[in-house]
Amino acid sequence: MTTDTAPRPSWQDLVTRKQRECREKIPHAWTLSPDIHISRRPIESDLPRTCGLLSDVELDLTENYSVAQLLAKLASGQTSSLALTTAFCKRAAIAQQVTSCLTETYFAQALERAQFLDKFIAREGKTVGPLHGLPVSLKDSFCVKGLQTTVGYVEFLKHGPATTNSALVEMLLDLGAVVYVKTNVPQTMMTGDSENNIYGRTLNPHNTSLTAGGSSGGEGALVAFRGSILGVGTDVAGSIRIPALCCGVYGFKPTTARIPFGGQISGVTEGIPGIIPSAGPLGHSIADLQLFMKTIVGNGQAWRYDHTAVAVPWNSAPESFSRHNGSLTIGLLAEDKQFPLHPPVKRALQKAVALLTCAGHRVVPVGNDTNEDLSVAYASRLGFQSFTYTPHQDHVGASGEPLVNSVAKFASPMFSGPWPVDQELDVFEKIQALHEAKSRVSNAWRHAWVDNKLDVVLAPGAQNTAVGYDTYGWPPYTLLWNLLDYPACIIPFGKASKELDPHEMKTGDDVQPDYHPEEVDGAPCAVQVIAPRFQDEKCLWAADIIDKVVNRSKEKPL
Amino acid sequence: MTTDTAPRPSWQDLVTRKQRECREKIPHAWTLSPDIHISRRPIESDLPRTCGLLSDVELDLTENYSVAQLLAKLASGQTSSLALTTAFCKRAAIAQQVTSCLTETYFAQALERAQFLDKFIAREGKTVGPLHGLPVSLKDSFCVKGLQTTVGYVEFLKHGPATTNSALVEMLLDLGAVVYVKTNVPQTMMTGDSENNIYGRTLNPHNTSLTAGGSSGGEGALVAFRGSILGVGTDVAGSIRIPALCCGVYGFKPTTARIPFGGQISGVTEGIPGIIPSAGPLGHSIADLQLFMKTIVGNGQAWRYDHTAVAVPWNSAPESFSRHNGSLTIGLLAEDKQFPLHPPVKRALQKAVALLTCAGHRVVPVGNDTNEDLSVAYASRLGFQSFTYTPHQDHVGASGEPLVNSVAKFASPMFSGPWPVDQELDVFEKIQALHEAKSRVSNAWRHAWVDNKLDVVLAPGAQNTAVGYDTYGWPPYTLLWNLLDYPACIIPFGKASKELDPHEMKTGDDVQPDYHPEEVDGAPCAVQVIAPRFQDEKCLWAADIIDKVVNRSKEKPL
Repeated sequence: MTTDTAPRPSWQDLVTRKQRECREKIPHAWTLSPDIHISRRPIESDLPRTCGLLSDVELDLTENYSVAQLLAKLASGQTSSLALTTAFCKRAAIAQQVTSCLTETYFAQALERAQFLDKFIAREGKTVGPLHGLPVSLKDSFCVKGLQTTVGYVEFLKHGPATTNSALVEMLLDLGAVVYVKTNVPQTMMTGDSENNIYGRTLNPHNTSLTAGGSSGGEGALVAFRGSILGVGTDVAGSIRIPALCCGVYGFKPTTARIPFGGQISGVTEGIPGIIPSAGPLGHSIADLQLFMKTIVGNGQAWRYDHTAVAVPWNSAPESFSRHNGSLTIGLLAEDKQFPLHPPVKRALQKAVALLTCAGHRVVPVGNDTNEDLSVAYASRLGFQSFTYTPHQDHVGASGEPLVNSVAKFASPMFSGPWPVDQELDVFEKIQALHEAKSRVSNAWRHAWVDNKLDVVLAPGAQNTAVGYDTYGWPPYTLLWNLLDYPACIIPFGKASKELDPHEMKTGDDVQPDYHPEEVDGAPCAVQVIAPRFQDEKCLWAADIIDKVVNRSKEKPL
Repeated sequence: MTTDTAPRPSWQDLVTRKQRECREKIPHAWTLSPDIHISRRPIESDLPRTCGLLSDVELDLTENYSVAQLLAKLASGQTSSLALTTAFCKRAAIAQQVTSCLTETYFAQALERAQFLDKFIAREGKTVGPLHGLPVSLKDSFCVKGLQTTVGYVEFLKHGPATTNSALVEMLLDLGAVVYVKTNVPQTMMTGDSENNIYGRTLNPHNTSLTAGGSSGGEGALVAFRGSILGVGTDVAGSIRIPALCCGVYGFKPTTARIPFGGQISGVTEGIPGIIPSAGPLGHSIADLQLFMKTIVGNGQAWRYDHTAVAVPWNSAPESFSRHNGSLTIGLLAEDKQFPLHPPVKRALQKAVALLTCAGHRVVPVGNDTNEDLSVAYASRLGFQSFTYTPHQDHVGASGEPLVNSVAKFASPMFSGPWPVDQELDVFEKIQALHEAKSRVSNAWRHAWVDNKLDVVLAPGAQNTAVGYDTYGWPPYTLLWNLLDYPACIIPFGKASKELDPHEMKTGDDVQPDYHPEEVDGAPCAVQVIAPRFQDEKCLWAADIIDKVVNRSKEKPL
């Protein structure tokens, strides 16, 4: 007879053990010297170059090529996967030391796989697949055999390593990619601050006093630091787009089920009607996002890996999108009075409109506060009610760990108006009423698109840029498009400037961030481009046109 | 002060008034002479020809052309829409008099629209759209401005005429089609007998002692009688495919949301998780079904009419389907012991397999009774529980009308095993458990497809052919594919024969029909072809290959 008399480990014990394990997995040769000065702005100060850990070749490989160019180098043997993977592993390790962007690292296995792929190409004279040799980073929620999936819950440290790969991981490996890191998320995966009690807080590499965004904040920081050429996040309210706009990278939330989502860990109950999350890429250009989508969606094979994925091929025929010789009709989403834009965000949007108009595109206003069905605030409340009407599983309390600040603050849009649906209805009535409300909103947006002959909508990605810790608040400008299941793309554009926007802006509540010119000076700005459901191809096609107009002269001040 | 002292009309009064209105809308010149002998087999006895109401031109137009050929005649001016619409209106009127297949008729307006279209083409030298001038019939559930939508409920006679068109109706009109009739359905739209207290029972035109199937039974009968060249039904458990297999016509249930479903009346609550219905065509050939799908889905414009429709273009590149030079790998669905096949159904399936094997296609067995996740009976029970766990609105009792027999009998698959999910769970738990069960089934079928490298599955459409009134029972072989949301096509193939299958078969319960050789002699047989979700294009492409193999020598006895 055995009796379990050993004391159960405390949550702190679990965390201490995990943190040590993570530290030990970073090779000593890749750790920053204690003598290195780490500035508040690691990207601006060019830490990857100045720290001395990366060779010139490694700096070149991680900085100067698109995904397509790297794949061509790999396929032609001009670069080995080992060299490329080593470069990104090292740069990711550096990123980790200054921004805490990683959860699980897989460096040894990644280098081993890279060598396997190099040998394959040498032996067979062909690639394993279209992503042969390319390192791809993944949000922590994706399962990789042998690694843990904790999604920010200490409780989940008690689970063993994953015994199966998520569908997308399986697909990426079949396509030839190399998995090397998983990236940090917030406790609950539902805030704009990627902080949890295991892996700490992910910092913004443009300014470590600012949030990197959430929930795919680790991806945002890692990609911005160029510790990843291509990362995968997930988005149910803005979790790809918020880190993208905070960290100044490109991010795309596709229509749900176009990228296989299956086999991830979220801690959330599946099957209850609500808002469905979507997996999608973060990267350095629209072309890189397009390459990811085109490769994964391909001729519609994702269903072979995931029964929830749709067998819809990627439509590579832009001639079917263009009605006016490439001149777009762009709906400009009206600012919602309940969620006023910070001056740098407003300025970036106005500048983008001016540049697009100059370039011959037509911009028409859409959406407003008076038509409830088109109102950002109403959609926010509807989204909030959809998220919160279901029973909640407390994975935080389970281990005894405390709530992190951003979760404890519990941002809510309910200051902006009443519940869309009577909270007292019984479950079936409430599900039905929420469905009806959502249908009204969907129908109103369909009409807005059709009646105005819109190609896409241009909108802010958020009220604000990256802001100070735990102040990001509620994400109305991203959530709207999750509610509608419309594909949406973040294009980084310009920077906040205390010179150009010198005046504070107070929002007057505890939910929304105030604008502090000094705090966010230099933070990336962004715009968001949206197309109707399943028009992911058109969304990225138009985003590319818009990006080329607004970022043509990236070097010039905004 | 006014007081409502007039007695409210009884349900019988409402029905009497409606029936008179319907009779009066059929022109006297199109009514069958009381001297005409109407046999039990109106198609076999060639009633349309022998009744003397149709001219030779009208017989020719309604009998000898595909949809593509008729559209070519219309576009070239070789046939006017007035002539074609008149021919189909007359033939539909005859069908109505012998099978009760119609609900609302729209003859006068249809002829007026046909004239408008003829004038348009004469004046403009071009068509209104790709369906210019083509009469299309619609299941009663579709709303057409000015017509009632009762879907078999006397209570709904109290509603006024529709003030808006269903999304698909709006789309068909924009494409140039002519709407001329709506067709009969069962009370509740959930049985295999299209009978209700307003429009009576739709009879099978091959044998009026047999059911025409349901719920799109009016379409099945009308198309079989060639009173329609192309009809639209809906299907949530088999409602397109059951009438198709009962009436010996082709029928296709697409993946949900590829054909706009919005703006119909069903009497069922929307938004509660369960099985989603799908709209699709019934017609005379795979090519006609393909033309419908290709035209409506087109380059993905259905979303402009219906926010629930997906913007997924029709993939017309069969080279992307074929892996082995057009030689198919076909999974043969195993017979479920709980739902044994009637001898003529089994014979048709075996004959199809023999012909396909001879033609060089590979047939491999899939599904079985021992793996619950692949079991037809288990999927049936899961579907049944999905349909019945939600609150029920009693639209029958509302008017005081009685239940029709097929509804009163309430077919259920629960004789085949236990509830998949504990009936005592609370609502959220039950929704989640049903979702999990459905996910397991979906995943098992994904594996079956991938592991066996299947192109499509070949299956029976039902245990039985058309059977005697109110005995159709539960539809396990169609429902499975609604549960999975897989596209499925009915190919008519052969006929029941009391000579070839002379022995009665008793199923031993009250739920499933027995096989009576005499009763069903001469009834059409059919097979079903299924592809995974969103592979509608591949489903019809393979169905066409299979149809050409099995029906190459249609004239020969089976």
